[in-house]
Amino acid sequence: MTESHHPFDRAIALTPEAPNLFFGRTSDDYWNAISPYGGVTAATVLEAVLQHPDRIGDPISMTVNFAAAIQGGELIVHAYPARTGRSTQHWQIEMTQPGDKQPLVTATAVFAIRRKTWGDIESRMPKAHGPQAFQRYLLPKPLPFLERYDIRYVDSSPYATEEESVTQCWISDVPPRRLDFPSIAAYCDSFIPRLFVRKGIASPVSTVSMSINFHIDTASLSAAQGTFAFGQARANGFNNGFYDQEGKLWSEDGLLLATTHQMVWFKD
Amino acid sequence: MTESHHPFDRAIALTPEAPNLFFGRTSDDYWNAISPYGGVTAATVLEAVLQHPDRIGDPISMTVNFAAAIQGGELIVHAYPARTGRSTQHWQIEMTQPGDKQPLVTATAVFAIRRKTWGDIESRMPKAHGPQAFQRYLLPKPLPFLERYDIRYVDSSPYATEEESVTQCWISDVPPRRLDFPSIAAYCDSFIPRLFVRKGIASPVSTVSMSINFHIDTASLSAAQGTFAFGQARANGFNNGFYDQEGKLWSEDGLLLATTHQMVWFKD
Repeated sequence: MTESHHPFDRAIALTPEAPNLFFGRTSDDYWNAISPYGGVTAATVLEAVLQHPDRIGDPISMTVNFAAAIQGGELIVHAYPARTGRSTQHWQIEMTQPGDKQPLVTATAVFAIRRKTWGDIESRMPKAHGPQAFQRYLLPKPLPFLERYDIRYVDSSPYATEEESVTQCWISDVPPRRLDFPSIAAYCDSFIPRLFVRKGIASPVSTVSMSINFHIDTASLSAAQGTFAFGQARANGFNNGFYDQEGKLWSEDGLLLATTHQMVWFKD
Repeated sequence: MTESHHPFDRAIALTPEAPNLFFGRTSDDYWNAISPYGGVTAATVLEAVLQHPDRIGDPISMTVNFAAAIQGGELIVHAYPARTGRSTQHWQIEMTQPGDKQPLVTATAVFAIRRKTWGDIESRMPKAHGPQAFQRYLLPKPLPFLERYDIRYVDSSPYATEEESVTQCWISDVPPRRLDFPSIAAYCDSFIPRLFVRKGIASPVSTVSMSINFHIDTASLSAAQGTFAFGQARANGFNNGFYDQEGKLWSEDGLLLATTHQMVWFKD
């Protein structure tokens, strides 16, 4: 199986249709309860910029806002550079579907040509055994997209039912796939909802906005080892219908890949 | 002095000019080195939505992208709801200036009508004495906007020159002003740049993107005590020209107000 035949690559595939306009299709492989898995939607938004002929540099940060449920079928992605500086570029992206003129997804992204500078990682990967030491977490009735992720919790259970919602896990595509910017964007949404962790049961949740800060560049990413990422996630607060989720992702060899933050609508 | 005469209110003041269009002006009171203080720009973006006749509910999250340096003078803010659901509303905002058609700032915001639900704050305010126990930090030659913030570090010095960039401080407007959503948005950008903390000196830095998640609603905010906020900030990583900054803000009585994350261009 070549990489281009990976279900993730098929799910985020876009065809350029006109300047700044790309067509795609939702993927049954990454279906969630009522709409596509948000991580794949974020990856598709990013893919539009990565494919765009005017793009410069690497992704630095992106924000994806989920405005309404995407239906199964065709996706229309409009992506254009709002402003390009000497080394940074600011993107506007919207996703629509035929017959619905209002955007289902709005997004912004900052790309930049990075330069060699001093660097340091303050958020080091927590000490844990490698992914081989843990078992894949399997739900009795998994949603389709969860079959595409091999998630291995390094603590006893993702349902802590304690006073803190922190979870730690290894995450890999199924089948394994080399980490790249789109897959990292998708991993950022793969953490079990913090509400489930706190309540010990699943309840209706829906991400309204997710931001991702990328800490790696193309060169360091191409040198990263392994196909798993180590993920740590937590919530800062739950209040009147919304809670947040913060996550960090490292490569198997401890490179900080991305930090991510989202706000989630919930019903209790 | 009534609240509307506070320099912060003058700095973020907008006049509706046409549907979805607001005019404002940069403020000398909040001038930074070469452009307006980014926190006031973020607050102005938020103010456009708060003033908009079609707005529903409270701010849940916002992302502000700084695409180019704003010049002193007139500001044009274009803000419109991209999609409104039953209880959530997604906003697109751009800021331009006369004679420059490309946006200087792009932004998105999610607003929502909150409902009473179960809640819990996992990120509790660190234990510290009240703001009266500490001295205002004064720079020998402060930038104008820094004269508008009373920042009191609760640790020995903001220049830790250690291996971690964490700082903790009390923050208040000068003169004191009741906390509201725009001032909280502005406080989110008031943390001393993490690069300065790590290097012990000031170097060129520029925020490219800042996201804010709001954890309070109008009702809890109006009950919050005091005019200071407690702030904690840190970086996760510095790498090839960009680093991140994460911050948390609490009211004097320990309400979690907001969490914020930004990516910063830097030169070393």
